[in-house]
Amino acid sequence: MHNFNSGPSILPREVFQQASEAILDYNNSGLSILEIGHRTPAFEAILHEAQSLVKELMQLDEAKKVLLLHGGASTQFFQVPMNLLNENATAAYLDCGTWGTKAIKEAKLFGHVDVVASSKDRNYSYIPKGYPIPGDAAYFHYTTNNTIEGTQMHAVPETNVPLVADMSSDILSAAMDFNRFALIYAGAQKNIGAAGVNLVVLDESVLGKVQRPLPSMMDYREHIKNGSMLNTPPVFAIFVCMLTLRWLKSKGGIAGIETLNRKKAALVYDTLDAISLFHTPVAKEDRSLMNVVFRVDDPALEKEFQQICRENNMYGFTGHRSVGGFRLSLYNALPYESVVAITDLMSAFAKKKG
Amino acid sequence: MHNFNSGPSILPREVFQQASEAILDYNNSGLSILEIGHRTPAFEAILHEAQSLVKELMQLDEAKKVLLLHGGASTQFFQVPMNLLNENATAAYLDCGTWGTKAIKEAKLFGHVDVVASSKDRNYSYIPKGYPIPGDAAYFHYTTNNTIEGTQMHAVPETNVPLVADMSSDILSAAMDFNRFALIYAGAQKNIGAAGVNLVVLDESVLGKVQRPLPSMMDYREHIKNGSMLNTPPVFAIFVCMLTLRWLKSKGGIAGIETLNRKKAALVYDTLDAISLFHTPVAKEDRSLMNVVFRVDDPALEKEFQQICRENNMYGFTGHRSVGGFRLSLYNALPYESVVAITDLMSAFAKKKG
Repeated sequence: MHNFNSGPSILPREVFQQASEAILDYNNSGLSILEIGHRTPAFEAILHEAQSLVKELMQLDEAKKVLLLHGGASTQFFQVPMNLLNENATAAYLDCGTWGTKAIKEAKLFGHVDVVASSKDRNYSYIPKGYPIPGDAAYFHYTTNNTIEGTQMHAVPETNVPLVADMSSDILSAAMDFNRFALIYAGAQKNIGAAGVNLVVLDESVLGKVQRPLPSMMDYREHIKNGSMLNTPPVFAIFVCMLTLRWLKSKGGIAGIETLNRKKAALVYDTLDAISLFHTPVAKEDRSLMNVVFRVDDPALEKEFQQICRENNMYGFTGHRSVGGFRLSLYNALPYESVVAITDLMSAFAKKKG
Repeated sequence: MHNFNSGPSILPREVFQQASEAILDYNNSGLSILEIGHRTPAFEAILHEAQSLVKELMQLDEAKKVLLLHGGASTQFFQVPMNLLNENATAAYLDCGTWGTKAIKEAKLFGHVDVVASSKDRNYSYIPKGYPIPGDAAYFHYTTNNTIEGTQMHAVPETNVPLVADMSSDILSAAMDFNRFALIYAGAQKNIGAAGVNLVVLDESVLGKVQRPLPSMMDYREHIKNGSMLNTPPVFAIFVCMLTLRWLKSKGGIAGIETLNRKKAALVYDTLDAISLFHTPVAKEDRSLMNVVFRVDDPALEKEFQQICRENNMYGFTGHRSVGGFRLSLYNALPYESVVAITDLMSAFAKKKG
């Protein structure tokens, strides 16, 4: 099978192998990874290794805090403003896709939101540029990669306002100065590991500035104080993250995987550009390296090509239910061979259809 | 190994086997359960089966809503009052252990809390009785089983106030009229499945009565509307729950497992009662069938018996870090043989020590 799913998505084969074995017997303990206590040296070693690998791979400053929390990015949509945005303060948000729009909606429950720019006018098919970020904003929030719309921000905005980013669908895929962000969050189920856990990387300096009382489970400070183990963590999901991070390190880390990711994306976009039957609505300079969206104009041909993909062991290649068409997610663990396989199908189909 | 851990805890061997296989290849799909999309017939079937099994096993009225949410019971400590308790309203809480105390702390962030009774005066070694529950309380909250202190409430309180219960450590272990509760929550990592997911069973009628705006991910109505799939759910944790629920059904459901659970608890308590070396601080009528706590008065002997347990493949038998001593968790999946094994050690140790 060639798995292009947008998340949960393909993980490395060796991660599946190791996770499968650990469920029967973790590390020759005679116990399943699913039944070990979380406040044990065995699990603490897993959690600490995952946190250290995040720091190492992202080349984070020593002071950055790495948390692995319950929930998905959708939880962070409200947890971020709950912790960082005072009732009378304003946060700046960039509106460049479905997930950013949801983040904006949640932030409005906690304070003022200044949407500094939006690409809604053209169905989020590009990334706005040249907008001002008010210097007094509590923070500036954006989505680095738009999983549904297939756009990606290829540069970190220049601003002195604390940067907050939802990196769910492109974290760990390409080099970036992660230290420029006050807070980064990402659901794990794409490049980090399995669904059911959230990575949060943050500067402690942005915390403690809101007046509202925070529930313990929503207070980043409580999680930091308790070493990311305020309550029973999602043990197995964290274990899968640790295995996936180890694999990434073995592949040369972010630099190593970026080379492969660029090669994969180039092959898909070159194929798309060469075939008039397929077209992508995304502005060329904003194309995502992680999620390639495209369509076939004729609905009958679109259906026919979907059928061909299915018959050739392609999985998860259709667009998000809100937009339709095709979407190929090219996350870290997707082998180059899968990209060759589907682009070969695309070329053959185009040739057949003249 | 004999696993007495309090959570994450032992699950049935066949669940480990099936989960391990599904990580390599789910249902002959050629894909791992970790990489399948959540909005697919494959995962929807898993989620729906888990929800149906909960309804069937707990004999719930058709109108009850069954949600499987991110997080643990600690998340529910604040999500419950956030959804049910208006700022000027009062909720009644029973304070009978560590977890109830934490729930009370979180509820106070949202409205008034009337602690109707507490067993703090004797280190939570008993369950208070005969307290009044104010008829105008928004709800009455209690913990059915106190994992740390080893007490359990053996009857559902008589009141017309909507009942809310944290059943994390005894859900599905014994017959109970679950329909009497307006809202039940339970972290999965004891009797339901793997860590990283929360079961919530509720009446829709208690919702929509608070004035505060709710973040989408915290709003039970949003989860109900979206069939417990508002965002990417903790796929694998839900899969493990489904497998565990299937296993429970195959064991005769709650009635079948209750017989076994009573037999296991009887053997441990009978052993404790027969040996003066060991003693449990828990009031006899409030003893938990799930978590048996006891001590050896002499610290040197306590240490010696701990060492004997370790040498005989016993795991997770020590008390919570806040109380020390011993704790044997006798959850559904713990075989009777494990209880025989440890009580044999207890008897032999007592005999040796005269």
